[in-house]
Amino acid sequence: MAKEKPQVLKGMRDFLPQQMIARNYVIGVARRVFESFGFEPLDTPSIEYAEVLMGKYGPEADRLLYSFEDRGGRRVGLRYDLTVPLARFVASHPELTRPFKRYQIGNVWRGEAPQEGRYREFTQCDVDIVGAPPPAADAEVAAVFYAVYHALGLDDVLVRLNHRQLLASAARVSGVPDPLHAAAFRGIDKLDKAPVETVKAEMAAAGIEPGSASRLLELTGLRIVGNDVSEARAYLAGDTEGLAALDEMARVIDLLDGMGVPTANYLLDLSLARGLDYYTGPIVEATLPGFRSSVGGGGRYDNLVGMFGAAPVPTVGASVGLDRIVLVLEKRGKLPAQKTVTDVLVTVFNSSMRKDSLSLAAELRQAGLMVETFLLDRGLGKQFAYADTRGIPYAIVLGPDELAEGTVSVKDLVAGDQVRLSRTEIADHVRRKKGIDG
Amino acid sequence: MAKEKPQVLKGMRDFLPQQMIARNYVIGVARRVFESFGFEPLDTPSIEYAEVLMGKYGPEADRLLYSFEDRGGRRVGLRYDLTVPLARFVASHPELTRPFKRYQIGNVWRGEAPQEGRYREFTQCDVDIVGAPPPAADAEVAAVFYAVYHALGLDDVLVRLNHRQLLASAARVSGVPDPLHAAAFRGIDKLDKAPVETVKAEMAAAGIEPGSASRLLELTGLRIVGNDVSEARAYLAGDTEGLAALDEMARVIDLLDGMGVPTANYLLDLSLARGLDYYTGPIVEATLPGFRSSVGGGGRYDNLVGMFGAAPVPTVGASVGLDRIVLVLEKRGKLPAQKTVTDVLVTVFNSSMRKDSLSLAAELRQAGLMVETFLLDRGLGKQFAYADTRGIPYAIVLGPDELAEGTVSVKDLVAGDQVRLSRTEIADHVRRKKGIDG
Repeated sequence: MAKEKPQVLKGMRDFLPQQMIARNYVIGVARRVFESFGFEPLDTPSIEYAEVLMGKYGPEADRLLYSFEDRGGRRVGLRYDLTVPLARFVASHPELTRPFKRYQIGNVWRGEAPQEGRYREFTQCDVDIVGAPPPAADAEVAAVFYAVYHALGLDDVLVRLNHRQLLASAARVSGVPDPLHAAAFRGIDKLDKAPVETVKAEMAAAGIEPGSASRLLELTGLRIVGNDVSEARAYLAGDTEGLAALDEMARVIDLLDGMGVPTANYLLDLSLARGLDYYTGPIVEATLPGFRSSVGGGGRYDNLVGMFGAAPVPTVGASVGLDRIVLVLEKRGKLPAQKTVTDVLVTVFNSSMRKDSLSLAAELRQAGLMVETFLLDRGLGKQFAYADTRGIPYAIVLGPDELAEGTVSVKDLVAGDQVRLSRTEIADHVRRKKGIDG
Repeated sequence: MAKEKPQVLKGMRDFLPQQMIARNYVIGVARRVFESFGFEPLDTPSIEYAEVLMGKYGPEADRLLYSFEDRGGRRVGLRYDLTVPLARFVASHPELTRPFKRYQIGNVWRGEAPQEGRYREFTQCDVDIVGAPPPAADAEVAAVFYAVYHALGLDDVLVRLNHRQLLASAARVSGVPDPLHAAAFRGIDKLDKAPVETVKAEMAAAGIEPGSASRLLELTGLRIVGNDVSEARAYLAGDTEGLAALDEMARVIDLLDGMGVPTANYLLDLSLARGLDYYTGPIVEATLPGFRSSVGGGGRYDNLVGMFGAAPVPTVGASVGLDRIVLVLEKRGKLPAQKTVTDVLVTVFNSSMRKDSLSLAAELRQAGLMVETFLLDRGLGKQFAYADTRGIPYAIVLGPDELAEGTVSVKDLVAGDQVRLSRTEIADHVRRKKGIDG
């Protein structure tokens, strides 16, 4: 076996234990919230026929797809997201009762140019409702989406809502001709990052009349808190589709209110323009103060899930951004502080007493603690140092004296103090101290 | 978008909700047990440089590897197991404190000929201890391995133990020449499936003398319960390496006893011969009565993890067979019976009362229930039928009468009965009934 220089591919990551503890925490919270709304777990293969994956999101995505020929000469690809596989799954399983509500937490692969916060393998946490029309399903997706952030203690999350038809309507009533809509929406999308004058100049360069651009920027500047949409209604007067979309959003918001989502946590933001060539109805995006990128998003896409079958299947979903959430929680100090899953290290006094320490460790596991025993033959000092380096908060010593007495010494490696306890008191002691200290 | 016929690749699988509930249950138990022994979670990329993966297990594995050229012209591959990535990880992270104990639960890919129980993508659940010599680490791996099956209620699991050097020694003392060891071990490995006469004939055909074959079969026929290895010791008299290996196994068994693993659940089985070209010390395999294949296995492999670095790194690990365990639990009726994660369906009496039902659902989630609300506009009969099809055990009706009274009607969809309760009683009622019924 040759010695190779070990390397991780660019854009791919090792997750060390402390990172995994954080990720598993967020995933665990998301799963519990998803399930509390009755979303069922689902998984699909990482590899699909390339033809299933290709041509669904446009040429850019096709280029980023990891596709190759397998040994059997089939053209295959690694999934690019969890949505196209869901569409394939729904077509493969016509027997499923609808509405079909599923969550899926899994890795996806994209050959993007690696950069800060962009990875070539990352985990998506998706919820989708297949086979349900607006507004009830859309409201539920927005509510479960909010509930994940809330459960993670991100109570300042802002769930921004809009509707694909509202944007189109806004462009129409502002006098932007159909062929220039895409350019107009690109401009609106830039308002977060660029001054309004720059956006206006770009719109003008694209051929949009200054009057139309101003009207559109004014209209999409509306932020509606609560469900009084009368101001937007006045702007859209006469545009039937726009008014219908506005009514739909008012009903979505009313239902969000019914589900107890606080008014401060959502907003009808007429400038929200995510993934326009993909979505067909209400859209949603989550942002957090002090964090520029969105931390998740979604919307209704009624044309995608039916594409492998005979008829369109109305579907709405959202995706929670695991990497970004972990980053935000870390910045805010809201991640579990543990460096390790382990509560206590049971030391080994000497090799002839190893078996006694192992029995004690087994007892403590029975009592519900996460217990490591020291695996090498070293002195107690080395064993304490090991526990300390690993971040294990307690070390237990079972020497000949303790064994004779039926006690142990419990050393708190953070505070430095040590107490002698009976064996049956250990678990409660550690739990109590962890509760107080943590 | 063209309509494609949706197909899953051969050897790949969709996991429907009920299957996912079963898999998540087993994975959850395995994780808790792994963590209770202080194994830390770890993850590595699904894709590695092909040169990291190639040439580690021999030409057969190289042939089965999913390897391809990425867009940047790099030769890459999908991981074939979690062990070679662990070796690469350890070399990439020389700063890690050792012993380094990690578990990893993740998918691996192998282009095998699809057949019953063989998949091209499957999930491995591995524990490994990096940087610890025998016997303490080997005993711990065998103990955590046993503990997973025990925690799943598979109390008749038999953890078979052996040592790579014991097999070699057995062949030597039986008079099998070194070049014929591999053929001899292949024969022993077949004893599960073929009559002893067939095995003897094959050994003879390979050039092994009948007297040697008989001695070897007699010796490897030994099954040692407990740690009295005197009988085996007599056979191996004079073979220093064999006797040392036997002593090592006696110590492993003594420590297993210390950790409270019942004597009935393990065995020193001198015929155990798994993965010989890979393991260097103690080996372990789990079997269950009535189930032919092993349900997991592992052992010590001191030469693999160091291969990317400057020096060998003593490592021992085991892998729990998720697919096979799910199959066994299903056959034995020991899987969670749920078809769904959902506890109750909150029906919607009519569309003007949807908001009331949503508020009730939010209350019940607060109280800890998994709650779905019905998303379409249908009559109550259709809603009950939906809950029934989905396997949701309870449906809640909140009509105008109930709303006026502050009550709800809770319909048990299995028993068919219905009770009227105050809103605050619902959660306890459902939990109590689930506890009794389930």
